Amino acid sequence: MYAVTLSTSPTAELRPLEPWMAEEFLAHIDRARATVDPWIPWASFSTDLDSARGTLQRYADKQAADGGRIHGIWLEGTLVGGVMFPRFDARTGNCEIGVWTEPAGEGHGLITTAARLLVEYAFVERGMQRIEWVTSTRNVRSSAVARRLGMTLDGVLRKEFLHNGERLDSEVWSLLADEWSAG
Amino acid sequence: MYAVTLSTSPTAELRPLEPWMAEEFLAHIDRARATVDPWIPWASFSTDLDSARGTLQRYADKQAADGGRIHGIWLEGTLVGGVMFPRFDARTGNCEIGVWTEPAGEGHGLITTAARLLVEYAFVERGMQRIEWVTSTRNVRSSAVARRLGMTLDGVLRKEFLHNGERLDSEVWSLLADEWSAG
Amino acid sequence: MYAVTLSTSPTAELRPLEPWMAEEFLAHIDRARATVDPWIPWASFSTDLDSARGTLQRYADKQAADGGRIHGIWLEGTLVGGVMFPRFDARTGNCEIGVWTEPAGEGHGLITTAARLLVEYAFVERGMQRIEWVTSTRNVRSSAVARRLGMTLDGVLRKEFLHNGERLDSEVWSLLADEWSAG
Amino acid sequence: MYAVTLSTSPTAELRPLEPWMAEEFLAHIDRARATVDPWIPWASFSTDLDSARGTLQRYADKQAADGGRIHGIWLEGTLVGGVMFPRFDARTGNCEIGVWTEPAGEGHGLITTAARLLVEYAFVERGMQRIEWVTSTRNVRSSAVARRLGMTLDGVLRKEFLHNGERLDSEVWSLLADEWSAG
Amino acid sequence: MYAVTLSTSPTAELRPLEPWMAEEFLAHIDRARATVDPWIPWASFSTDLDSARGTLQRYADKQAADGGRIHGIWLEGTLVGGVMFPRFDARTGNCEIGVWTEPAGEGHGLITTAARLLVEYAFVERGMQRIEWVTSTRNVRSSAVARRLGMTLDGVLRKEFLHNGERLDSEVWSLLADEWSAG
Amino acid sequence: MYAVTLSTSPTAELRPLEPWMAEEFLAHIDRARATVDPWIPWASFSTDLDSARGTLQRYADKQAADGGRIHGIWLEGTLVGGVMFPRFDARTGNCEIGVWTEPAGEGHGLITTAARLLVEYAFVERGMQRIEWVTSTRNVRSSAVARRLGMTLDGVLRKEFLHNGERLDSEVWSLLADEWSAG
Repeated sequence: MYAVTLSTSPTAELRPLEPWMAEEFLAHIDRARATVDPWIPWASFSTDLDSARGTLQRYADKQAADGGRIHGIWLEGTLVGGVMFPRFDARTGNCEIGVWTEPAGEGHGLITTAARLLVEYAFVERGMQRIEWVTSTRNVRSSAVARRLGMTLDGVLRKEFLHNGERLDSEVWSLLADEWSAG
Repeated sequence: MYAVTLSTSPTAELRPLEPWMAEEFLAHIDRARATVDPWIPWASFSTDLDSARGTLQRYADKQAADGGRIHGIWLEGTLVGGVMFPRFDARTGNCEIGVWTEPAGEGHGLITTAARLLVEYAFVERGMQRIEWVTSTRNVRSSAVARRLGMTLDGVLRKEFLHNGERLDSEVWSLLADEWSAG
Repeated sequence: MYAVTLSTSPTAELRPLEPWMAEEFLAHIDRARATVDPWIPWASFSTDLDSARGTLQRYADKQAADGGRIHGIWLEGTLVGGVMFPRFDARTGNCEIGVWTEPAGEGHGLITTAARLLVEYAFVERGMQRIEWVTSTRNVRSSAVARRLGMTLDGVLRKEFLHNGERLDSEVWSLLADEWSAG
Repeated sequence: MYAVTLSTSPTAELRPLEPWMAEEFLAHIDRARATVDPWIPWASFSTDLDSARGTLQRYADKQAADGGRIHGIWLEGTLVGGVMFPRFDARTGNCEIGVWTEPAGEGHGLITTAARLLVEYAFVERGMQRIEWVTSTRNVRSSAVARRLGMTLDGVLRKEFLHNGERLDSEVWSLLADEWSAG
Repeated sequence: MYAVTLSTSPTAELRPLEPWMAEEFLAHIDRARATVDPWIPWASFSTDLDSARGTLQRYADKQAADGGRIHGIWLEGTLVGGVMFPRFDARTGNCEIGVWTEPAGEGHGLITTAARLLVEYAFVERGMQRIEWVTSTRNVRSSAVARRLGMTLDGVLRKEFLHNGERLDSEVWSLLADEWSAG
Repeated sequence: MYAVTLSTSPTAELRPLEPWMAEEFLAHIDRARATVDPWIPWASFSTDLDSARGTLQRYADKQAADGGRIHGIWLEGTLVGGVMFPRFDARTGNCEIGVWTEPAGEGHGLITTAARLLVEYAFVERGMQRIEWVTSTRNVRSSAVARRLGMTLDGVLRKEFLHNGERLDSEVWSLLADEWSAG
């Protein structure tokens, strides 16, 4: 029922991603897995209809508790990626934004535009104070989005991210409320 | 983040109504109580911040289980009423729509327009098969909306609704998916 | 421990139907399935010992919350059918009665007699105000019992009941407390 | 709906004791407290409507899990005492029976008769193998009932029962299934 | 992190036994099963990694609620047995101690020494008032430990213990706080 | 029952800190509040017996789920501080260590020694891979401990810590398993 057209692409829309969309989500994740898997933990956990629905249900429960949200990006009617708050804590004013996409969703500025909507929601609509962006140092595409959003690199958590038995360094970027309103 | 402008009033918007809006919701319910109380059970239960948040939290939990949803209507930035699915059962294809408003929200066609959006969502987006509308026989304004939506009166449940110690008759109206697509 | 002899049949008894009787219940449902399946949703869900016990456990939990009850009818020591409150809401004074039987239990007036005991319990012992009886328009045998109990047809819910992919009309009958005490 | 007339007193009945009877139960416990309090732990915990309902609700939940049951004794329409299974474990075949009464219920053999119904239920209807009866050594009236039921004293648990800061010895009596069927 | 060296054997240690040790625990139970199985119910339930972890998790949950604890005995680095509180009720001051061992743990006085540590903990550190020891009359080795701890036989619960379809008598031994401090 | 003597102070011991010690814990927190409050969130939440027990119960539940632990430090028999794992995730190999003390516990090297025991437990006994230490940039005493443990400053999370309406920067220090084993 709800949708926001992304300013960069008249045929791209952001919408809530919900458990009843599990089939559509699974088909998308199957297309996205190769690209997404190294960085988005739930990609490895969403391999059939039950586990895909489980991932979306966990986000539905998070949303009910105001502890996180997930949104999909549809390009010409096809789900091609999304943006999410893996953590959202209104009491402390801290939250985290994450993103993902399948190949068809790359190169249109979709992710950056959609992430900006989440930043706007967090700071302006909800009064949050600090947004984090956590990414592997190897995921240069992701760091580039953080930089484009005007974020600052707070530090590198050494060997913090476990992936396929290997431990990778994690960058922590942040954006503060007054940096956004100032911009 | 999400909003739908209502076609009848360029300054009126439908948005999800969520627990973190409890203060705004309570102020609205205080203005609406005299009008709404006879017909909307949770109006009597939402008398302070805790109980108002409790009402919205119950709907947030329903939404997480895909068993119901609640949406507010904002007119020129003020919450003046809303529309909801008190019941939503995707397995059987049955759901119920309810509405409420404070005096400032009456007379603009807001309720009918917003209810149409819910009908559209249920039938087109979700593939539901039957929508119910339950109202007291004394609530003529509500019956009028049901009629305007093209609904049929299925029957009158005698003395089904308990209100302030009195038992009132409840009308059950319905709309079927093929009636809507046919329209 | 508890049993009520049905007035119409000296060898017929009504007793609480509980989870530890799951084997006996399953054997009965296997005999009843062909007759019952179109109308009693849980018949399709009770196909082995686990699911049969699950059905009875759901009723045991309902009873603990005073939200429903289930009773079996034993004819010459064999479980042949039953009567139940699928919904029971002491706060609003509304409840619903349902019945089922296997072929061996038909034609003795067992069902009507047992249903009367539930009506008596609801109105006299518990002070309920309205009892509903919901049945498919095709289930003429069930409508006949409602009529025999002195119920009134409140309406027909069009296409409300989903059965094997087909949508059927549901009759809603009701009996009010003062109609019973008046009778 | 269900009741068993006690053989010793034509005006005395055993019935399930349920949470919706909390007011009646509280009035009875208020009359019984002086007599019952030393021996029945929940008597001290049931001092107003909420706590009385809480006691009955715990038994309702136990019954739903087949882990215990509580029954009241009504004498000429007044609740005067009861019998219960504080523990009931169908898997191991072990259960415990307890009893209580207010002064008006004493001296009619009500308790012994009602306890016999529970023994019968446990051994014959449910196939239990061992019934325990635990009582303070000071509660001679209770030991007398155990003896009348044909029970054997298995031992005395020294200082096992904490009551008002004092530790009392507890007698454990038992009755085995083959002793009952033999008798 | 925590360990207590047992006074009788410089190479024997008592340590908390926790769910993350499930593999080690299972290997031990496999060695212990023949000896332990008749008397320790959870031995029969811990036959693979999941069920072994389940047993330890139940104890972890008991400990979080202060309702029980389990400790392992390591002899020269190998888990060979243990001692536990299957029940612990700080409100009433009653608890129960149980023990088990694999053949390699027998004959060193490990069990008696470790049980003494639990007695000391219960009476001195926690202010408990009564410790029970429940064992089959056939388990003479266990009765001997109870006697060595200075316990008194309170009674024999006839046919109380169900084991492989046979019902055995259970001895109940006890030790009171003032007996220990007196000793 | 369990205790580890701290090498630096023969009269100082580390022991599990559990809900039944709530009174002792509250008395200690009352003495520690002025020093601890700015940095340890649960200090502000533990102001009476119920909330103090609540804090310890949350840690008891964390421990049961292997998601955290809390230990107290007793100096000459008085609880003067402690060390904890606020987060512990055996699956990813990441955990966090935190510490606190009342004035009487400062200046003896107690905290550093106790924290070393936790590091040893995490890396050697549990095979963890990365330990974090999060502290306000203003808490120089805490940074000094991190440095003494051989930790590296991974970064500074700007305005991440909300304290009394002010937002402070948080340092994130880390220690990796191979750095410890190398040392």
